[in-house]
Amino acid sequence: MSKMVDQQTFDRLLTEFKQRVDQALEHWLPVDTLNPVSLHQAMRYSVLGSGKRVRPALVYATASTLGLPLEKVDGIAAAIEIIHAYSLIHDDLPAMDDDDLRRGKPTCHKQFDEATAILAGDALQALAFYILTHDPEMTSDASRRLEMIEKLALFSGSRGMAGGQAIDLASVGKEINITELETMHIHKTGALIRTCIQMAALTSNSISDVKFEALDCYAKKIGLSFQVQDDILDVTGDTETLGKPQGSDAGLDKPTFPAIMGLQPAREKALELHHQALKAIDCFGEEADILRSISNWFVQRSH
Amino acid sequence: MSKMVDQQTFDRLLTEFKQRVDQALEHWLPVDTLNPVSLHQAMRYSVLGSGKRVRPALVYATASTLGLPLEKVDGIAAAIEIIHAYSLIHDDLPAMDDDDLRRGKPTCHKQFDEATAILAGDALQALAFYILTHDPEMTSDASRRLEMIEKLALFSGSRGMAGGQAIDLASVGKEINITELETMHIHKTGALIRTCIQMAALTSNSISDVKFEALDCYAKKIGLSFQVQDDILDVTGDTETLGKPQGSDAGLDKPTFPAIMGLQPAREKALELHHQALKAIDCFGEEADILRSISNWFVQRSH
Repeated sequence: MSKMVDQQTFDRLLTEFKQRVDQALEHWLPVDTLNPVSLHQAMRYSVLGSGKRVRPALVYATASTLGLPLEKVDGIAAAIEIIHAYSLIHDDLPAMDDDDLRRGKPTCHKQFDEATAILAGDALQALAFYILTHDPEMTSDASRRLEMIEKLALFSGSRGMAGGQAIDLASVGKEINITELETMHIHKTGALIRTCIQMAALTSNSISDVKFEALDCYAKKIGLSFQVQDDILDVTGDTETLGKPQGSDAGLDKPTFPAIMGLQPAREKALELHHQALKAIDCFGEEADILRSISNWFVQRSH
Repeated sequence: MSKMVDQQTFDRLLTEFKQRVDQALEHWLPVDTLNPVSLHQAMRYSVLGSGKRVRPALVYATASTLGLPLEKVDGIAAAIEIIHAYSLIHDDLPAMDDDDLRRGKPTCHKQFDEATAILAGDALQALAFYILTHDPEMTSDASRRLEMIEKLALFSGSRGMAGGQAIDLASVGKEINITELETMHIHKTGALIRTCIQMAALTSNSISDVKFEALDCYAKKIGLSFQVQDDILDVTGDTETLGKPQGSDAGLDKPTFPAIMGLQPAREKALELHHQALKAIDCFGEEADILRSISNWFVQRSH
C-alpha cells in the first residue's frame, strides 16, 4: 500500500511549505513603518523568522493530498500561524506561563513590554480573520469561506484553544487523570490542528464526506500524538541535559503523559496514535504519503 | 426639517435596544456551567448586566433609520458589544491602565485573575467573529456577511481599536498636539463606532452609496464627539467631586481635549462635531431622528 515519502523529499517539502507561508506572512503583516510602529514591530517580531511552521505544513500537506494548488491555502496557512503566534505571545506573559525566551530569543513582552505584547496578540487575532475574508485565492464560494471562518473562531475560542489554555492553567499543581489531560490537550493544541486540516479540506469543491471525516480523524490522532511526544521530549531532554532520572517530571507542577502513565507507556501511546492516524487515511492512496510522513515526524522528532 | 425624538421616546428606545442586545448576548455567550467554567464565568461577568450599550444602540438606530427589522442586527449588536467588552478587559489589566473597578464592580482580573482575564478577552474576540458567521437573521447574502466580518477585523485590529490603544499607551506622559490626540481617538474609539454603523448599513439590500457615505460621515463625527465629551466630563466631574479647578487635568499623565485646547474650546468642539453629524445625515428624513438624538446624547450627557 502507500508509504511515507523519503527523508530527502520530506525535508524538501517542509522547506518549501515554510518558504510559502513565510512569504504569505510577510505579505499580510502590516509593515513596521506603519503607525503604531511598536505594535506592528511586535506583531512582526513574534510571527516572522523562526518557528517550525508545523501547522502551515499540515495545511499544505492536506491541500497536496487533495490535489489542490498550494496557492489556494497560502492565506489559510498564514491565518492559522498568526493565531498560533498570538496564542504563544499571550501564553508567555508573566500572568500565564511567564516565559522569557521563545525559540531562542526574548519573548514579545521581554523584547517590547507587556502592554504591547497583549495588544500585539489581540491585533494578530483580528488579522487572522481579516486574511480569511480577504485572500483572493482561497475560494470563490463565499459560503465556504464563512464556514472556514466559523471553524477558526470556534476552535480558537473558549471551546477550543483558549479554553484549553484555561484548563492547562487550572491544572497546574493538581493531580489529574489521563482523560482530563487528554481533554486539555484536545482543546489547547488539538483544536487548532484539526482546524488546519478542516480549513484546507474546505477549499476543495469535490471532497466527499467520508474523506473529510477521514482527514479529521487523522487530525485528532496527530494532534494528540504531537503533545504526547512533546511531553516525552521534556523528560528525555531533561535526562540528557540535566542528568535527572527519567520520570522525575512527576514532581513538576504541570501534568504530563509520562508523569501520569510512565515514560514507556507514553511512548507506546504516541506510536499507537501514529498508527491510528495512518489507518484513518487508508482510504487515500500515495497522494497522502506526505500526511503519513508528518504523522511519523510528530512521534519521531527529537526537538 | 427633521428633529430629534422627544426625551421619553428616546429613553424608551434606548431601554428597548439594551434589552434586545442583552437577550442576544445571553443567547450567544456560553453558559457558565460549561467547561472551562471559570473562563466562561469571566466572559459572562464582563459582558452581561451593566454597560450603557452605546454601540448596540447605534447599530439598532441605524437599522431603524434604514427601515430594517431590528432582529436583522441583533447578532451585529452582540458581536460589537463583545469586542468592546474584550477591549475593556484587556485595557483594565495591570500592564495596561491597571484599573480595579469597571462600572462599579471589580474588573475581570480582580474578580478572577490576570490569566483568566487575558484568556476571557481572547475568547470573546473569537466569539464575536463566530456570531457573525452564524447568526441566521443578519443576511442571506454570504458575500455581504464576509464584508461585515472584514470590517470588524480591520477596525478592531492594529489599524483600528488595538492600534488606538497602543497609541494611547505610548502617549502617556508625552506632549502631543490636537491632531495626534484625534488620531488616537479615531482609532481607539472611533473605528468601532464606525463599524457599528457600517455593519448595520450593510444588512440593507438597497442602501445607496450616498446614504452609506452619509452614515459613515455621521459615525466619524459622533465617534470623536463622544470622546471629547468623555474628556470634558473627566474635568468637570473632578471639579464637582474633588473640588479641583477646571483645567487641572493638564497635569495628568494622559492627554485630553480640555488639557490641550482648554475646556471651553473643547465644549465648542463637541458641539461643532454634533452639528456636523446632524448635517451629514441631512439626506435622511425623520426616520433618522433617533440617530440625531444619539448624537445629541453624546454631547449632552453628564456621565
